[in-house]
Amino acid sequence: MSLLFKHLRIHQIFGANTDVGKTILTTALVRASASLKNEVFYLKPISTGPIQDADDEHIIRHSSTFKDRVHADCLYRFHVPVSPHLAAQLAAGEESQKIVPDGTFINSIRSYVQRSASRASGPAHMYVETAGGVHSPTLSGTTQLDCYRPLFLPTVLIGDSRLGGISATISAYESLLLRGYIVDAILLFRDDYYRNSEYLTPYFAERGVAVTATDPPPPKASDAAETFASTERYYENLDILPTVRDLNTRHEERLAELDSMPRRSLDAFWWPFVQHGLVKGEKDVTVIDSASSDFFSVYNSQTTDKKSSLDAQLDSSASWWTQAFGHAHPALTLAAARASGRYGHVMFPQATHAPALELAERLLDGPGKGWASRVFFSDDGSTAMEVALKMALRAYSVRNNLRGIERKKVGVLGLKGSYHGDTIGAMDACAEEGVYTCEWHNAKGFWLDPPTISIQHGRPVIALPPALAASDTMCESDVASDSESWVYDVAGRLQTPLAEVYRDYISRTLDGLHSARGVPRLAALVLEPIVMGAGGMIFVDPLFQRILVDVVRARDESPATEPGSWRGLPVIYDEVFVGLYRLGMQSTIPLLGATPDISVNAKILTGGLVPLATTLASDSIFRAFYGPDKAEALLHGHSYTAHALGCEVANESMKLIEKATQSEAWLAAQARWQEPGTRNSVWSFWDPEFVQTVSSMDTVAEVMALGTVLAIKVKDSGAGYVSQSAQTLLQSLKVTDSESPSEVPDFSVHFRTLGNVAYFMTSLNTAPETIRILENKIWNVLQNSD
Amino acid sequence: MSLLFKHLRIHQIFGANTDVGKTILTTALVRASASLKNEVFYLKPISTGPIQDADDEHIIRHSSTFKDRVHADCLYRFHVPVSPHLAAQLAAGEESQKIVPDGTFINSIRSYVQRSASRASGPAHMYVETAGGVHSPTLSGTTQLDCYRPLFLPTVLIGDSRLGGISATISAYESLLLRGYIVDAILLFRDDYYRNSEYLTPYFAERGVAVTATDPPPPKASDAAETFASTERYYENLDILPTVRDLNTRHEERLAELDSMPRRSLDAFWWPFVQHGLVKGEKDVTVIDSASSDFFSVYNSQTTDKKSSLDAQLDSSASWWTQAFGHAHPALTLAAARASGRYGHVMFPQATHAPALELAERLLDGPGKGWASRVFFSDDGSTAMEVALKMALRAYSVRNNLRGIERKKVGVLGLKGSYHGDTIGAMDACAEEGVYTCEWHNAKGFWLDPPTISIQHGRPVIALPPALAASDTMCESDVASDSESWVYDVAGRLQTPLAEVYRDYISRTLDGLHSARGVPRLAALVLEPIVMGAGGMIFVDPLFQRILVDVVRARDESPATEPGSWRGLPVIYDEVFVGLYRLGMQSTIPLLGATPDISVNAKILTGGLVPLATTLASDSIFRAFYGPDKAEALLHGHSYTAHALGCEVANESMKLIEKATQSEAWLAAQARWQEPGTRNSVWSFWDPEFVQTVSSMDTVAEVMALGTVLAIKVKDSGAGYVSQSAQTLLQSLKVTDSESPSEVPDFSVHFRTLGNVAYFMTSLNTAPETIRILENKIWNVLQNSD
Repeated sequence: MSLLFKHLRIHQIFGANTDVGKTILTTALVRASASLKNEVFYLKPISTGPIQDADDEHIIRHSSTFKDRVHADCLYRFHVPVSPHLAAQLAAGEESQKIVPDGTFINSIRSYVQRSASRASGPAHMYVETAGGVHSPTLSGTTQLDCYRPLFLPTVLIGDSRLGGISATISAYESLLLRGYIVDAILLFRDDYYRNSEYLTPYFAERGVAVTATDPPPPKASDAAETFASTERYYENLDILPTVRDLNTRHEERLAELDSMPRRSLDAFWWPFVQHGLVKGEKDVTVIDSASSDFFSVYNSQTTDKKSSLDAQLDSSASWWTQAFGHAHPALTLAAARASGRYGHVMFPQATHAPALELAERLLDGPGKGWASRVFFSDDGSTAMEVALKMALRAYSVRNNLRGIERKKVGVLGLKGSYHGDTIGAMDACAEEGVYTCEWHNAKGFWLDPPTISIQHGRPVIALPPALAASDTMCESDVASDSESWVYDVAGRLQTPLAEVYRDYISRTLDGLHSARGVPRLAALVLEPIVMGAGGMIFVDPLFQRILVDVVRARDESPATEPGSWRGLPVIYDEVFVGLYRLGMQSTIPLLGATPDISVNAKILTGGLVPLATTLASDSIFRAFYGPDKAEALLHGHSYTAHALGCEVANESMKLIEKATQSEAWLAAQARWQEPGTRNSVWSFWDPEFVQTVSSMDTVAEVMALGTVLAIKVKDSGAGYVSQSAQTLLQSLKVTDSESPSEVPDFSVHFRTLGNVAYFMTSLNTAPETIRILENKIWNVLQNSD
Repeated sequence: MSLLFKHLRIHQIFGANTDVGKTILTTALVRASASLKNEVFYLKPISTGPIQDADDEHIIRHSSTFKDRVHADCLYRFHVPVSPHLAAQLAAGEESQKIVPDGTFINSIRSYVQRSASRASGPAHMYVETAGGVHSPTLSGTTQLDCYRPLFLPTVLIGDSRLGGISATISAYESLLLRGYIVDAILLFRDDYYRNSEYLTPYFAERGVAVTATDPPPPKASDAAETFASTERYYENLDILPTVRDLNTRHEERLAELDSMPRRSLDAFWWPFVQHGLVKGEKDVTVIDSASSDFFSVYNSQTTDKKSSLDAQLDSSASWWTQAFGHAHPALTLAAARASGRYGHVMFPQATHAPALELAERLLDGPGKGWASRVFFSDDGSTAMEVALKMALRAYSVRNNLRGIERKKVGVLGLKGSYHGDTIGAMDACAEEGVYTCEWHNAKGFWLDPPTISIQHGRPVIALPPALAASDTMCESDVASDSESWVYDVAGRLQTPLAEVYRDYISRTLDGLHSARGVPRLAALVLEPIVMGAGGMIFVDPLFQRILVDVVRARDESPATEPGSWRGLPVIYDEVFVGLYRLGMQSTIPLLGATPDISVNAKILTGGLVPLATTLASDSIFRAFYGPDKAEALLHGHSYTAHALGCEVANESMKLIEKATQSEAWLAAQARWQEPGTRNSVWSFWDPEFVQTVSSMDTVAEVMALGTVLAIKVKDSGAGYVSQSAQTLLQSLKVTDSESPSEVPDFSVHFRTLGNVAYFMTSLNTAPETIRILENKIWNVLQNSD
C-alpha cells in the first residue's frame, strides 16, 4: 500500500508533541517548496479547530505569493482542540458522517494523493500533516504511527523546543523507528533559553538525521491584518530551503537506491534454492522496500508517473511458512526491543533468563503437554532436527548397548517425501530422491510410501501407494470418503478395515527389513505429521502415521521399561511446518492420538520475525544422556542458543496466538467447516466451497486445505521438484490487475510452487476479505486456463 | 550493577514529559508508603529550582504526619528550571564541584541506596525521581534512560494528562522498553476535558501495565500557609494506596520469580554442552536478570538484607564469543527495532531488501575484498560451514567430473583440533577425536597435526608436533622466537628454514595420502586461520597454514583454469570465531597473505545480538552451480535466510566497529604492543606485561593473547576436553571479593574453560579499567595457587 511517486515527493509531518509548531513549519516547507517553483500539495487529514483568518493554515491557503501553485485540503475538521479519540464523540451531529474506520480513512488519503498526482505536471511536493504527537489517537482508535504505517511515507519530525522537548523529540523519534519509518529530517524552533537544538543536533547527527532549528514565529498582533503581515514577513525570512533541498535529495536517493538494487543484488547475492542461471535479469528480482501485515511493498521501476512506484504484493507463501501475524507487527517489534534492551544476548549453558524459561514452560504446557519434560534450544528447524536425531539415536544406542562402529551404522524409519532441513544430518534422515541431495548426503534408513489425502471433484480421496494397494485385494488404490472431518477422525477410524490393511502392511514391511540389503539397523521413527510440506505439500493419511507409531511401539523387544519410557523406537515428530496453528491446531499430536518422544518446532515459533527453534524431549530420552560423565552429555549447542530476543518474541507470539484463536475471523472460519454430526477436528481459513469448486476444475488434479494452507496440484504428466507447471499456470497472479476499481487498492500475489503444486498460505490473522479476493484471483486464473 | 533488595523496594520515577506532576505524584507515593508504616526514602538525584516553603518537595520533608518515617535527599540542586545539559554550565561557581561524570554519579546513587538500606530495619520503600522526561539529558550528556540503565531499577511512568499527552506517554513507555526497563505502573492526573486516561487505560491494560488516574493538585493559594494546608488536604484525600500495594506485589513477585527460576530451569531446560548429572543443584544455575555492557546482573538468593540481591558478573567469555559491544547496546536495539518495524522478516529467494544488500556489500568490501563475489546467508556458524562444504565439494566434483557414488566419497583436508560447528555435516569436516562425536558423526578427510604458538616464560615459542619435529634433523620440537610480531610476520618468514621444513613435511604427507588406507579423496582444504577456538584455543603457527594453502594450490593438476579460479582444492576459511576483530583484525586473510575461495562469518557479525551467518564465495565457486538446470543450483536455504532484523543489526555493528577501531582505548592498546623496528601486525587489549608475567607463573604452562582473547593453559598431566583443571584452579574468580572497597562495585567473573585452558575475552569496547581489574583478579588467583 506504500506510496512513492517519481514526480511527487511526499513527506509526512509528525510532531514530537502537540503544539510544537507542526503547522507553522509545514507551512514553511510548503512555501519553500513553492518558492522553488514546485507545485505543492498540503494535506491535513484531520484538523482540530476552525480556520481563523490569521491562522497559519489560512495563510497556506490565502498567501498571494504562491496561491497558484499551492493546493491545500483537509479531510476532517473539528471545531475544538481535542484529541481525535474524543473528536469522534464531540463531532456527533456536526460532521459525524465523515468519521470512518481506519481502512477507508487511509484509502481517502490514498485517493487524494492519486488525484493530486495526476494533477501535477512536473515534479511536485506533498506534505501530509498528522494531528498531535506521533502517538496521538486517530479517529479509528489506533495511534497516528500505526494508522499511517501501511502508506509508509517518509517523515519529517517536528521537534519540541520547550523545556522537556529534548526528551519528547528523542522518544518520538524512537517510536517512529519502532514502526520502521524513514526519518528524513528533524525541524524545531530555535529557543535561546532552552537551546534544545544544541543537544539534539549532534545527537541525531550520530544517527544520520539532520536537525534544523528555525526562528520561532512572531507573537500575534492585535488585529488580523497586522498578524497576517508579520506572519508573511516571518515566513519570507525563514531560511528553510536547505531542508527542502535535502528532502529532495533524500527522495531522489531513495528512488536511485531502489533502481540500483536489482542489479547490485544480482551481483552480490547467492540466493537459497535459486538457480541463478534461470534468473533472467533485473525484472526477476523482487525489491522489497517495506512490508506491512500480509503485504510486501515491492518496487516497480516500470510504473507510470501517475502510479506509485511501490506495488502491494500479497506474501502468499507467508515468507516461506514463517508468518503468523503479518509483517512488522508492532507487538513483536516491541517484544524484540524489550529483550534486546534488557539482555542483548546472554550465554545459556547452566544459565537461565525469564524469556527462555517462560517459553520453555509454555511449550511444555502446549505441544509438549503430557509427554515432554525438557526443551533444547537451537537456531532453525534443521539444527533442531539434528538435535532431535542426536537425541533419538543416542537413546536407542544406549538402551541397546551399541558400541563403536555399531552406533555409526544406525538409521531411521520414515516416510517417502519427507524433508527435515538442509544441514547434512537432517538430510540424511530423508531418502535420497530426485535432485534434493549433495555430495555428503548419505540417506540412512528406510522410508515407506504413505497413503495421501486430497480433495478431488469435491470429495476427499485417500490415495494408496502401489505397494499398499497391492497388499490387499479388498483395497483399491483410491478410497473416496464422505467428509474431511471423517478422514481426520483418527480415533474413529482405528477399527476400520483400512486400518487393518495399514497395520498388516507396516508389520509385514518391517518384518522384511531384517533381511533386506542396504537397510541399516533402525534406531528412530521420524515423521512430519499430517503434511509433508517441502516434499510437495503431501497430505498424509494421519491414520497411517498413527498406526505406524503404534506398530513400531508394539514391536518393542526390550525388557520391561519404566512407565513413560520410549518403546520400540524413539519417535520424532517434526512439527516445524505443521505446528503452532499452521494447520489450524496448536499441535498435530492430539489429532494423531499418539505422543512422540521428541518433537521439533520452529518457523511460526517467533511469529515470523527471527530464527529460533526448539527440540522437546521426554524424560526417558533425557535420561540417556544423564550421568556423571561430561562425555555422555549432549555436546551440541550454538552460540546464540535461547537468545533472549527470539524467546521474548516467541512468548509474545504465543500470546497473540491465544487471542487470535478467539477472534471473530477464526471462529467464523471454523464454523464454515463445521459438518453436521461430525467431530470438527479440522478446518481452514480457506472457504470450503471454494476448495470444492477448484477441486473440480479441468486443470486441477487435486486440492487440499487445512488451517492456513491451501495446496493445488495442477495436472502435469512430468511432475517433480524442477517442474514449472504450477508456476507457469498461475504466473499471472504475479501481476496486478489494472482493471481493478481504484477504491480497492489491488495487489499482486507473491506465491511459491513445489513442482506441480502451488500452495498459498495465510497468516493467523489475515483479513477474511483478503482471502476472499485471493480466492477470486486464483479461481479467475484457473478458469481462464481451463 | 543492578540494585534489588529484599527489604527495600525501589522504584525509579520517570516522566512522560517535564512538568507532568512527577514530584507531586512521587510525594503521593512517598506518603502512601509511609501511611502503610513503611520507612520511606525519597531520592531526587537532580533538582532544578530552589525549595520553596509550599513546594511539594518541601512537603515531603516537612509534613508532620510522616516526618519520622520519611527521609529525603537530593544529590544536585540547580536554582533555575533548565535542562540538565545546561545546568552543568549555569551552575558554574555555585555547586559546580558536585558536577561529576556518569560513573561517579551512578555510584553516588548506589552508595546512597546502600546507606539507606542499612538504615532501614523493616521493609522500606524508596522512590528515585528522575529529572525531566525519560530522555532528558543528564549532567554527563547521556539521557536519563541510558544513564540509569546499569542500575536497572523497576520504574513508574508518570503520564501526561494534557493535550498531546497520550502520545507523550506512549512514546516515553516505548523508550523505556527499548532499554529493557520494567514498567510497573503508570500514573497520571485525571483531566475531565482531555480524558487521556480513558484512552491510556485499555491501551496499557493490553500491554500488562495498570494506569491510575488521580485528582490533579489544588491551585496555589495566595499565602504559603494556606497552600500548605490545602496541599496537605489534597494528599490526604488522594487514594493512591492501591498503586503502592500493587508496586509491593510486583516487587515481591519479582523476587519470588527470581527465587523460583533455578528450580524451574533445572526442571525445564536441556542445556547445550552441559552434563545435567554434574549440575549439583539450584546454586549451580546462573540466573541472569538483565545485562548491561560487559556485565550480567545475576541473582544471588543468599545475599544479606543489606546487599543487593543482584551481583555484577563480568561476562568474560563474551557470551560464547559473540559479544562485540557488550549487552543491550542501545544502537543495536534500535537497529533491530527499525528493521522489525519496517520489514519483519521477508522471504529471500530472488528477493532483495536494503539491510541484506548493504550487509552483503560491506562483507564483499571487507573480509571478501579482492576475492569474494557472492554472499550466501544462513543462521549460524555451523549452517554456514555446511553451506561452505556443499559449495567446495560440488566445485571439486564438477571440475573433476565425479559421478554418483564417487561424489559421496570425497573428504576434506584440515588440521587436528579443528571445530566447525555442531550439525553433522560440519562435524564430519573434523577429525573424530575424543568425546566430541555422535552416532552419525563420520569424519571424512585427513587432518594434519599443526605447529602451535604460545608464550612461555615471557617468550613466544613455536611448538612442533612430533611428526613434524621428527621430519627434519635441523628442527627441534620447540622453536623460541624473538617476538610475537615476528611470529605473525608471515610474509617475512616465508623464506626461513622452518618454512622449508613445513613445505617439505606437507608435501611429503600429501604425497603419502594417495596410497594411505582409509583416507578419502580430498576435495577441499578447511582451516580455522590463526586460532582453533573450540579445539582448545590452539594458536596455530600462521606460517604453517599459509604454506599449507600454497602447497595445496601448487599441486593443482587440472588443465589451465581461468584467472581467479580455485586451484588444487577449494580453500575454506572458517572465520566464525576469528573474524571481525575478535583477534584485533577485521579478517585473518591479510595476515596469512593467501585468500580463500570460501569464507564463513558469524558470532560477532550481529554485534552479539541474534543468530546470523554468512558464507562468502569466489566467482569460480559460484560458477560450479550456475547453469540452465534448477537441479544444479545450491539447494540449501533456511526459512529466515537474510532476516532483515539480523542484517540491520549487523550493519549497525559494522558501523560501531569502524568507530571502535579509532577509539582511544583501541589505539592505546595497539601502542602498548608496538615493538620497535617490527611490523605491528598483532596486538591485544590485554596488557603485554601481564601476559608475560603470567606466562612465567608456576601453575601456568603457557599463555597467548591476541585481540580480545587471552588463553591460559594451566599445567595438568591429564588434560583434555573433560578436564576440570582450569575450572578448578580459577574457580574463585566466580565469587566476588567481599573485602573490596564499596566505592568501586566489585564483580565476579563468569568464565568458561576448555579442559586445561581457561580463556577470557573482552568486547571491542570493554573499558580498559575493567580489563585491568580482571588482570589483577586473574593474577591474584594464580599467585595464590602457586
